[in-house]
Parts: sequence; structure tokens; C-alpha cells
Amino acid sequence: MSFSPLIENLVDGLRCLPGVGPKSAQRMALHLLERDREGATALAESLVAAMTGVRHCQQCRNFSEETLCSICRDQRRDNKTLCVVESPSDVMAVEQSGSYRGQYFVLMGHLSPIDGIGPEEIGLDQLQSRVADEDVTEVILATNPTVEGEATAYYVGELLRADGVTVTRIAHGVPLGGELEFVDGNTLAHALSGRREVGIT
Amino acid sequence: MSFSPLIENLVDGLRCLPGVGPKSAQRMALHLLERDREGATALAESLVAAMTGVRHCQQCRNFSEETLCSICRDQRRDNKTLCVVESPSDVMAVEQSGSYRGQYFVLMGHLSPIDGIGPEEIGLDQLQSRVADEDVTEVILATNPTVEGEATAYYVGELLRADGVTVTRIAHGVPLGGELEFVDGNTLAHALSGRREVGIT
Repeated sequence: MSFSPLIENLVDGLRCLPGVGPKSAQRMALHLLERDREGATALAESLVAAMTGVRHCQQCRNFSEETLCSICRDQRRDNKTLCVVESPSDVMAVEQSGSYRGQYFVLMGHLSPIDGIGPEEIGLDQLQSRVADEDVTEVILATNPTVEGEATAYYVGELLRADGVTVTRIAHGVPLGGELEFVDGNTLAHALSGRREVGIT
Repeated sequence: MSFSPLIENLVDGLRCLPGVGPKSAQRMALHLLERDREGATALAESLVAAMTGVRHCQQCRNFSEETLCSICRDQRRDNKTLCVVESPSDVMAVEQSGSYRGQYFVLMGHLSPIDGIGPEEIGLDQLQSRVADEDVTEVILATNPTVEGEATAYYVGELLRADGVTVTRIAHGVPLGGELEFVDGNTLAHALSGRREVGIT
């Protein structure tokens, strides 16, 4: 016993969403059919529009509908500083901190030779030529503090330092609002080795 | 700072799915754009196909692409027994139990006067005429064991008993595999009042 073919197709289709298993997909499909057919139609339209319309910014590789994304087009931002992140949601996170006014470069992933993702796939040649062309003075490496993110940061750092540009890495340490006893040992080791003299800002 | 309009639309669209908040919707949108554009296009197609193609079976009100659903069309099933359930997923649940070979009637909800859902909205006139026309001998009420489900079962039961048909309610009691000490008092009260003499089947 199963639902009709169209419903089965819909359940299968919904499973392409991350974190959605067979039970949730079935619940979603029935919910849409019973209560929100308009919403489902609108969702289908926005899916098609996004999948056909969203490409990558030619300069920073972030998602954009136009050749240059809104951040790259913004003349008020500092063109001499470049923040290298792994994904578009990282750009969002840094923007939401409100403390960065430079430009970005989005790797759209991290180095992972085992998956065939090398320097070319994450656009490092593009990054190098951009750093050279635009006289970038500082590159901030803000990849994730994971093994892959650290390895990528190390590789990118070595590459750009050879070109004579200042390369920095965001600080790792104890997050605000956390309690010291619940912070893991590695983070605490980073926090200790990255200590700064009090009174100097 | 926000994503481009197309991505924002997609995030909004995904929020029509049950259990998907702003953060999950954003994660889903970026996942689809980064890793599964084909899947997203297929999902859009299956959404449109299901929303336009899936209607209700004229006989049992379950979801169906044709005038009669596959269960109603099945000649090998017992036409004299009717199981009344609240939703299509309940039909699926009863079918998966493998112990029922009769027909169904799907209310597509339950009585809820406060939301304007009365006997007409859950198709009770259709149920009554079907019971009369097809010489149904037994109607099994399998609405959910919730307040609304019980009230609906009571109402449907009174209605059909007046027409002279046998009406039964599925048994409530201790679920298999459960432990008695964790079963709530109401269920246990049902289990006690619904006790049966051992050796009689």
C-alpha cells in the first residue's frame, strides 16, 4: 500500500531537503496538500526562480543574481581588506556582527583532496589575481575552526604570504557568554596562547 | 544585510513547510543552491504536479489523482465494512497494520465548531448516503483518541446508529511493547473497562 504516484513523487522530491527523512517528507506532503496548496505553488515558483536566476558573483564568488553582488558593488566598503570565508552563510554571519566593512571572498567549500576539491575548485587563482590587481593590503582568513577549515586557512595563508600580502587569522578563544568550565581543552589552549596584555587595545 | 531577493523568496517559500523555521529554511535554501540544484528543480516539478493533479476520491474523500482511489476501485475488498478515519495518513497506518480489508471514509479533519468545521465540512451527508446506498453493515470509527476525535466519533456514531447500521469504535488500551508503569491513567482506565474474558476470541 502506498499513496498515489503524484504524492509519492512529491514525498521523494521533498527528501532532497537536508534533514528531511521519509516520515517528515510524508508529513510535509500531506500538510501541503491538505492545508497549503497556494504556499506549495509559491514554493515551486521560488525554487525554479532561484535555481535558474542565482549564480555566483564574478568577484567574490558569493551567490548573486547579477554579475557583481551587492557587497562588491558597494563603493563605501573598504576594498583593501578581504575576508576569506567558506560559504555564503559565513558572509551573513560576519555581516551580522556589524564589525567588518571590507570585502569578501567566498571559497564555496574547503580544500578536500579526497573529494577532488583542490585549490582550483575553491578559486584560489582568482583570489590571488584579485589580491594582486586590487592592491589588497590585508587578507583575513575566516574559514571554520575545523580540521579542513584550518588546513585551508594554512594553505591560503602560505600562498598569499608568498605574494607579499599581510595575512591574518580570526582569533580563536572562549566565546562570550560561555562558562570557562564548559569550554573544551583545545579552545582553551587557543585562548591561552592567544592572550593579550591588559590595557593594550 | 540579507541575501539576494531570489534567495530571500526561496527562504520565505520554504517556511510554508511544517516544522521549518527561518534558520532551517536558510540552511535548506543554501544547501539546494550549493549542492543540489537538480533535486530542487525536480522538487519544484513534483510540487506543481501534485498540487494540480491530486484531488479527492469521490467515494472515500481520500487523496487521489483519479475519480476513484485505488482502494475504492479494488473489487477484492469488502464493501460492507467502512472504516472512518480523520486523514489520509490514518488510512496508510490502518493499511500498514495489514488486518483490515474493508473500505474507508476519510473525514479530512474532525468536527471543530469553533473553526467552522461542522458535519458538512467533514462530509457526513456523503457518508450517510454511502452507508444507505451500499448496504454497509458495519462502520468502524477509527478517529484519533483525542478530545476532538472522540467527539467526532460520538457524533458520527449517533448519526449512523439512527440509520440502523452497526457502529463500532476501535479499542483503546495498553499498546503492545509498552510497559504498564509508563501508561497514562486514562489509557489504563480504558484498558480496564474494555477487558475481555480470557479464552474467548
